[in-house]
Amino acid sequence: MEVRILGINGSPRNYGNSYKLLSVALKAAEKEGAKTELVNLYDYKINPCVGCLSDDLVKCKYPCIIEDEMKILYEKVLRSDGLIISSPVYWFGVSGHLKNFIDRLTVFENMIYVEGRCWVEGKVVGLIAVGADSGQVQLISNLMATFNSMGMVIPPWALAYATTSGDVLEIKDAVLDAANVGRSVAVMTKMLKRGNIAWYDPNLLDNMRDKLEQVKKEVWENKRERVKTSPLR
Amino acid sequence: MEVRILGINGSPRNYGNSYKLLSVALKAAEKEGAKTELVNLYDYKINPCVGCLSDDLVKCKYPCIIEDEMKILYEKVLRSDGLIISSPVYWFGVSGHLKNFIDRLTVFENMIYVEGRCWVEGKVVGLIAVGADSGQVQLISNLMATFNSMGMVIPPWALAYATTSGDVLEIKDAVLDAANVGRSVAVMTKMLKRGNIAWYDPNLLDNMRDKLEQVKKEVWENKRERVKTSPLR
Amino acid sequence: MEVRILGINGSPRNYGNSYKLLSVALKAAEKEGAKTELVNLYDYKINPCVGCLSDDLVKCKYPCIIEDEMKILYEKVLRSDGLIISSPVYWFGVSGHLKNFIDRLTVFENMIYVEGRCWVEGKVVGLIAVGADSGQVQLISNLMATFNSMGMVIPPWALAYATTSGDVLEIKDAVLDAANVGRSVAVMTKMLKRGNIAWYDPNLLDNMRDKLEQVKKEVWENKRERVKTSPLR
Amino acid sequence: MEVRILGINGSPRNYGNSYKLLSVALKAAEKEGAKTELVNLYDYKINPCVGCLSDDLVKCKYPCIIEDEMKILYEKVLRSDGLIISSPVYWFGVSGHLKNFIDRLTVFENMIYVEGRCWVEGKVVGLIAVGADSGQVQLISNLMATFNSMGMVIPPWALAYATTSGDVLEIKDAVLDAANVGRSVAVMTKMLKRGNIAWYDPNLLDNMRDKLEQVKKEVWENKRERVKTSPLR
Repeated sequence: MEVRILGINGSPRNYGNSYKLLSVALKAAEKEGAKTELVNLYDYKINPCVGCLSDDLVKCKYPCIIEDEMKILYEKVLRSDGLIISSPVYWFGVSGHLKNFIDRLTVFENMIYVEGRCWVEGKVVGLIAVGADSGQVQLISNLMATFNSMGMVIPPWALAYATTSGDVLEIKDAVLDAANVGRSVAVMTKMLKRGNIAWYDPNLLDNMRDKLEQVKKEVWENKRERVKTSPLR
Repeated sequence: MEVRILGINGSPRNYGNSYKLLSVALKAAEKEGAKTELVNLYDYKINPCVGCLSDDLVKCKYPCIIEDEMKILYEKVLRSDGLIISSPVYWFGVSGHLKNFIDRLTVFENMIYVEGRCWVEGKVVGLIAVGADSGQVQLISNLMATFNSMGMVIPPWALAYATTSGDVLEIKDAVLDAANVGRSVAVMTKMLKRGNIAWYDPNLLDNMRDKLEQVKKEVWENKRERVKTSPLR
Repeated sequence: MEVRILGINGSPRNYGNSYKLLSVALKAAEKEGAKTELVNLYDYKINPCVGCLSDDLVKCKYPCIIEDEMKILYEKVLRSDGLIISSPVYWFGVSGHLKNFIDRLTVFENMIYVEGRCWVEGKVVGLIAVGADSGQVQLISNLMATFNSMGMVIPPWALAYATTSGDVLEIKDAVLDAANVGRSVAVMTKMLKRGNIAWYDPNLLDNMRDKLEQVKKEVWENKRERVKTSPLR
Repeated sequence: MEVRILGINGSPRNYGNSYKLLSVALKAAEKEGAKTELVNLYDYKINPCVGCLSDDLVKCKYPCIIEDEMKILYEKVLRSDGLIISSPVYWFGVSGHLKNFIDRLTVFENMIYVEGRCWVEGKVVGLIAVGADSGQVQLISNLMATFNSMGMVIPPWALAYATTSGDVLEIKDAVLDAANVGRSVAVMTKMLKRGNIAWYDPNLLDNMRDKLEQVKKEVWENKRERVKTSPLR
């Protein structure tokens, strides 16, 4: 079964450390049989999100009302089964340009309110960050929560990073980690594509009514017993 | 195939909001056939990690040199296929007690340096946070990066949270999200147990030498072409 | 002594919650005698930072090589003694447009490498965030580290936030906190303007040589005594 | 005027990198005339916070109901005018032991609900973090938001950090930054002690009623004009 992995380079450079580790990750994904594509985000004009959903929740939906080159990227994201995002660290976070890209992905996530299903649910994501200063994992942490809130899977060892202003390809651990990001994303993508699972069940509580009553009863009893189970022991 | 999911309640209360959403998640996991157990962390005496690896990397290994009730929890974690961690928000992060638990898990992760394999790799993790103030996703972001750095999988929709000082069971969205955390962790756990995959390959670069050369060459060419592909377009 | 406080609205709306709390903060600052100005960031075209310093550290300096409306904002920032930044929460962080603004401020900070002094050192900053979901303090935490790394002061109670999709002016605590942000920024700004202090001393270590030797000696002795002061007590 | 600065070493080692940079910072503070004290937190038994305020907001107040060695530290904090916290990076955050210390400080902050005044308001804080991996500024960001939420001041350049597993005293930039943390905290502490300011005004909105009406009116007009000022320009 063919899987497609899209690499997003959030750096203005197509010869810098973010690009390098992303390339390594994609090569490792190819070794696992994935079809890959690398996109340099700075080659595209991406306008900032204007937060339509602040005025009306269901106004934010695909296609986005903003007409720009994000249209090309939207299609690339939809067609991919996995994403690997690589970013330089700009003030302990992603570059504003990459943030605009991520903000604009809200149209896919928000389809859950428009038609009950998030359009990027079940895609697999891997994350890479390089900077001369601190902030690598701060950036990655933020993206993990973001993409998981869009229903994406974060497979084991899905992060690679380095603290350097030199050539990151000289740092063997970072290169190995990046390769493993690519491998892990590819392996998980293949596994999930076989499964074809709907991950979020909006009606899950419907036949859990007695279970919920049980939780309430337990909580009530625990509270009554609180003297014995006092946190101060 | 039987899967076991361990719920960790990081709150001093076994009748509070962290406990409630965790219970809901575990009930949903049971519906998927998982065997579950809920542990109230404050029932256990857990001493702070003393960071042995600062003195000598391989000194930090299982079993931990600190003799306390963490020993019981170490065994519960090892026996489980999935974890769901639920925490109150204390100053935009987990409680110090839960942080001590997490710090002490380093003995499992560090086995990668001692014997080439992290002992909790491939386990599945879900995360829940409740607080009256802000910080829910800040807490969850941090734990995602932490547990993924230990090789754990974060399945789709693996986070649930609420901002409330009232009864969280009254907030339907939070309860539904918590149930979906339990379901998603259970579904992923079952899928992975069938696969039995080794996720991190420490020798992955060995037969990638020509691929790495290719990356270096591409980078070199991109750099030469930089005038044409200048970031300032 | 006159002080100037610049309010930056990072939201595309000039009638939304970020705008409202920012206006309240500026009114409170005016009560303290400050001259204020509110800028709606989405009224300005701001291109993404291209990270010149990645190629050569001293290439990043004021004026920025990118020619756009940021030029107007650079001047407004330079002329102000205090800043109050207000942002909607987009994926647990600032909007991409606001991030571009912040990334572009690097030209001021980087003057420390170009001429030994950061151009925004000693300015006072206050922070406001509003969102329907989580992430308010995650956003604020990130900006605190960012602006403090540029040498700015964060006065007491310099943060205000709310979790709401309704009218934030109905949430009295948030309005009071926002007013106190404005007051605190103004009070601190006035105090510092009287002081006229150079905060970072690049030559501070020059006459601390014996002090540093003392630290090394203490560390050595502590390490020798480690058996007695073992962390495991 | 005498000022007192308390250094808190959150590491189990009194000869490690956190200790070293903290010592440097305190020496620089002494040069500014401050009286300093360094506390090794692992020398004190600190039990986890049990979150009394979850049951009843005003139950959390000084003195804390937990009887342990935190009592000694509470007094040291109260007597100090400035704090410098130094921590090793444990999983992208402070050690659980330091987190317990911070959680327990809630009794001071919460006095705002008990008697209208936070007991640590106006103290000055500086932050230091050292680790072999990533997470330094993630840790510091979190503490900045935490201590500012307690009403503390973060003076310019109040952060120092390093990514190293070697001897941090060999990294000149980190040592210089740590010295400047000490200097900046001391300079700000002296300045504020002269001022003797009450920073948070709980009645600030009382005579701002017309100002708030003005904000509402402006918002209303902006909203009416939205067609012209549409974010999509």
